[in-house]
Parts: sequence; C-alpha cells; structure tokens
Amino acid sequence: MTADTAYCDWIAVDWGTSRLRAWAMAGVGLDARPKAEVSSEAGMSTLDRAGFEPALLDLVSPWLGAGQTEVVACGMVGSRQGWVEAPYRPVPAPPPSDPVIAPTSDPRIAVRVLPGLRQDNPPDVMRGEETQIAGFLATRPGFDGVLCLPGTHTKWAQISAGEVVSFRTFMTGELFALVSDHSLLRHTIGPGWDDAAFADALSDAIARPEAMAARLFALRAEGLLTGLAPSAARARASGLLVGAELAAARPYWLGNAVAVVGAPAQSKLYTTALRLQGLVPDEAPGDAMVLAGLAAAQAVLEPTP
Amino acid sequence: MTADTAYCDWIAVDWGTSRLRAWAMAGVGLDARPKAEVSSEAGMSTLDRAGFEPALLDLVSPWLGAGQTEVVACGMVGSRQGWVEAPYRPVPAPPPSDPVIAPTSDPRIAVRVLPGLRQDNPPDVMRGEETQIAGFLATRPGFDGVLCLPGTHTKWAQISAGEVVSFRTFMTGELFALVSDHSLLRHTIGPGWDDAAFADALSDAIARPEAMAARLFALRAEGLLTGLAPSAARARASGLLVGAELAAARPYWLGNAVAVVGAPAQSKLYTTALRLQGLVPDEAPGDAMVLAGLAAAQAVLEPTP
Repeated sequence: MTADTAYCDWIAVDWGTSRLRAWAMAGVGLDARPKAEVSSEAGMSTLDRAGFEPALLDLVSPWLGAGQTEVVACGMVGSRQGWVEAPYRPVPAPPPSDPVIAPTSDPRIAVRVLPGLRQDNPPDVMRGEETQIAGFLATRPGFDGVLCLPGTHTKWAQISAGEVVSFRTFMTGELFALVSDHSLLRHTIGPGWDDAAFADALSDAIARPEAMAARLFALRAEGLLTGLAPSAARARASGLLVGAELAAARPYWLGNAVAVVGAPAQSKLYTTALRLQGLVPDEAPGDAMVLAGLAAAQAVLEPTP
Repeated sequence: MTADTAYCDWIAVDWGTSRLRAWAMAGVGLDARPKAEVSSEAGMSTLDRAGFEPALLDLVSPWLGAGQTEVVACGMVGSRQGWVEAPYRPVPAPPPSDPVIAPTSDPRIAVRVLPGLRQDNPPDVMRGEETQIAGFLATRPGFDGVLCLPGTHTKWAQISAGEVVSFRTFMTGELFALVSDHSLLRHTIGPGWDDAAFADALSDAIARPEAMAARLFALRAEGLLTGLAPSAARARASGLLVGAELAAARPYWLGNAVAVVGAPAQSKLYTTALRLQGLVPDEAPGDAMVLAGLAAAQAVLEPTP
C-alpha cells in the first residue's frame, strides 16, 4: 500500500446520532467484505455541518489513495441537522434508493448519503434501519414477512415484494433506559438478569399492557417490602416494556414470517419474547446487515459527476 | 408574641423527598387552621439522620416558646432513610394511625411521624398520601368510594368504612417528566397545552393502551413530517399516559364515587379525563387535605412521654 493506491475499493459508513463507524471495503455487492473497521464518538449530534468532512477524514484518511474513493453512508448523517439532508422517501418503497451527494472539499472522497423512510399514517420515520433492511433483503432475496429491528427505538417493518410496505417504531429501549437509570426504580433495578422474571413479566404485560405504569411502581414496592433482587427487577422491567410492545405489534408478528435484525443482546430479548408466543423467528446480526445494505446501494451507484 | 409563649398551638409538617413544608397551626381537630406556612428544599433525600432536627428548627424556631410544642409530620421523613422509621401499616387500615416518636435533642419540640401504608398483593406502598386520605375522610365522614391522588406517582385508593381497603400506584407523572424532559421527545414537546389533543390521545390510549411506546414515537415523527405544534405534542403525550392509566385503573373508578385529591394543575388532568368517561368526580385540594389529616392525627395524640 502506497499513498498512490487506495487501501480499499470503497468505504462504508454508518453515522448515527452518537457514533460514527466506517469500514474499508474490498469487493462490491454481495462479494463486498470489510477489511478494516474504525469508529469514533463523532456522532451527528456532536457536529455542525462543517464538521462532518473533517470527522470522517480523521478516521479514514489512512485508507485513501491519490484517486477518488467512493463513500456510502447511512443514518442520521442524512437528517436535516446532518452533513446533507437526504429527504425521507415515502413507503411503500424499496430500501434504500437515490442517495444524495454530500458537499466535500477534499478531492480524494466522493460521499453519498442514503435517505431514510417516512410513513404518513400513522406518522413514522426511520434513518439507518432501512439500510439494515436492504441488507437483509440482499442476503434473503424473496423474503416476505416482518422484520423486527431492536434498538433504542425498535422498528417493526412489513416487507412484501422487496418493498417496505409499512412500519412502526416503539420507544421501548429508550423507556427502559429512562426507567432504569433515571426514575425512582434506579434504586431497585441492578445489574444481572433473570430469565424466568422476564418471561413472567412479558406474559403479564401481553395480557394487561395498560398496567405498565403500575407494574413498574410495584417493582419498587416489592423491593422495599420483600427485597426483590435487583437482577429480577431489571428483567421484569424489561419484560413489562417488551410485552406491551409485543401486544401492540401483534398485527405485525401474528401469522407472519418474522426475522429479528440487530445487536445480539437486544435481539435476544425479542427472539426470546417471540419464541414464548410460539414463533420461530429468523435472526441476522445488525452490523452485517448494515454493511450488506451499504454494499447493495454502492453496487448500483452511478459515478459521481 | 414573646419567647415564653409559642406562636402556635402545634406544628404540622409535610416532609417529602425533595421538599419540607411546615405550618404553624391554631386550634385542634376540625377547627385547626394554619396561621403561617414556611418551606425549604431540605427534603429527605438531602439529609442524613442527624440533619432532620436542625433542618426543621431552622424553619420553625420563630414559632416556638419556652415550653414544648407538638410537631406532627408525614411523608418520606418516616422512611427507612428518614428521621425515624415509621413502618408501613398493612391495608386494610384507617389512615393514619400510631405515629412514631422521632428522637430530638431540643426540649422545645416533640416530634411524631405518621406511618405510611403497605399492600402485599399486588405489592404497593404509600407515604404522605395516607394523610391526605385521612384529611379527606375527616372532612367527608362516611365517604365510601375511590380517591385518586395525582402526583409524580399517582395513587388510586379504595375506601370503605373509613379504611383504605386497597390501592394502586402508577408512575404516570414520573414517566411524563422523563419522556418530555429526557427522551428524544424533548425536541418535540414544548410549553403550552391543547385540550382537544389531550382528549383525543386519552381516548386513543384507553382504547389501545398497549400502543403507548409507538404513539409516543409518532409524536416525534409527526413533529418532523408535518410540524406538530409543541403544545399539542405535550397534551398528546400526557393524554397517552393518563389514558393508559385510566384503562388500568378502570376497576377503581368504574361504577364508584370518585374524588380527586391533589394539586390543582395535576388534579385537572384527572378530573378532565374522568369527566370524558362520563363521571362527575368530586375534588379536594391536596394541601388542605394533608393539613386536615395532620390535624386529625394530632387531635388524638397521647401526650409524649
């Protein structure tokens, strides 16, 4: 490797609110493979518009050669507060399509940003997950069913004929973080886990999802009165929140092929919960799917002007 | 008033987690009236055990005379981390009863702390609200029905024959504060209010309480896509949370006489919500009820040893 020859064929970027990840990619399309990965805390929320190019170059410049290297990015980098706005595409739509060129001053990079998806009724948006969906569809052509994408804001997406037909976002992950770190329950919820407590709470919540705010307080009361274990409290709080989500998302998962796409720890919650409803969900790692989605988008790019 | 004669007949204290309030009281029982009120931020959570007596004296010493003045206190001051633990009494129980004497070094005060209530199944606790309930029952003898006590942790209590038979706590107020101040929705929720948006969201949530985590995210999406007004977002978030609570508390309010006891702003949410269900709730101010409850307890005190 010299300064004249680029280290990689192209660069894949997943740029979220709080984190920037980049991969040096070898090959294209289904053959694309990551050679190296770098990341930083230079998320969208820490940058103004002029800060994106330097933040990216700071991470990837060792990979660049004398010529121009193609960069394909997804996530909040395409939001109104991002590097360039890549407007949401309305569903139904095949994900992702029509990237937007980001303004750059360094001639060694040509950056394209993938748009997110929007739904008008009920109102909903996604940015980043559409690329994971594209990756899943690239590796499972012909999949018809439902994808569950766990995270801070978990998405359920109905897929048909290669398009996202409808989707729904649940703030479950963020509510769990708020409740366990910032509410009165922070004194009750501790580290560790209890599978049986998760299953019980999940079942309770699916049966009576409206009682969540009372069942959460009951964890505190049980902690005071009978010394509920902090690990059981954590699993029960999670089960209550995921259970309410499953009750509301029933039209998505009931009677459909379901796959869970995400980070292993979060995915496990949902695959466990779905198995307890009698389903046999497929699983795919979120990291690999976002790379596959970026590769699918890169493979069909027109050359930059 | 001289240093020899106390300014008041006794002192009423409501000592919560984050705030200390004290009233100089003239008269006893149903004739007791506040002459003066003082308050500070010296809540239970800011004090260690040795800090309670100085914090109280700091506020009330101008009211004391040469003799001993009786102080009756309720709230978190009686918790395990408080001045003295006044153990929870199990329901069914008449509220409040059997105060516990707090250790003091200043001979001018004799302090008694009222216990809270506990319920073993489902597990629940209250501290402070039992005194508001006692005040309500002192002013409405013979009341049979349900009290709703709105707050950070809203309580619903079933009252029969002068006793609290059962109760249930909902973290609704705390969830609203977390969601509006600390979640992604802090960018969507702003000041102001929209009565129609509250009523619509309330009705949606009573019909489908399980969808709360999705409907909350939809506020963010609608803010991005169609510019939902921050005041409407605030009222909708509140309506979604209160609606889910009403769905879960239906066994309490349906077919019963209901009274709402609390601070006017929070009480208004619940009286509005209950009226939309066809009820005609009674109302009583929380401040006056806690004073009436402390007065009822003071009236039956044995002299301190």
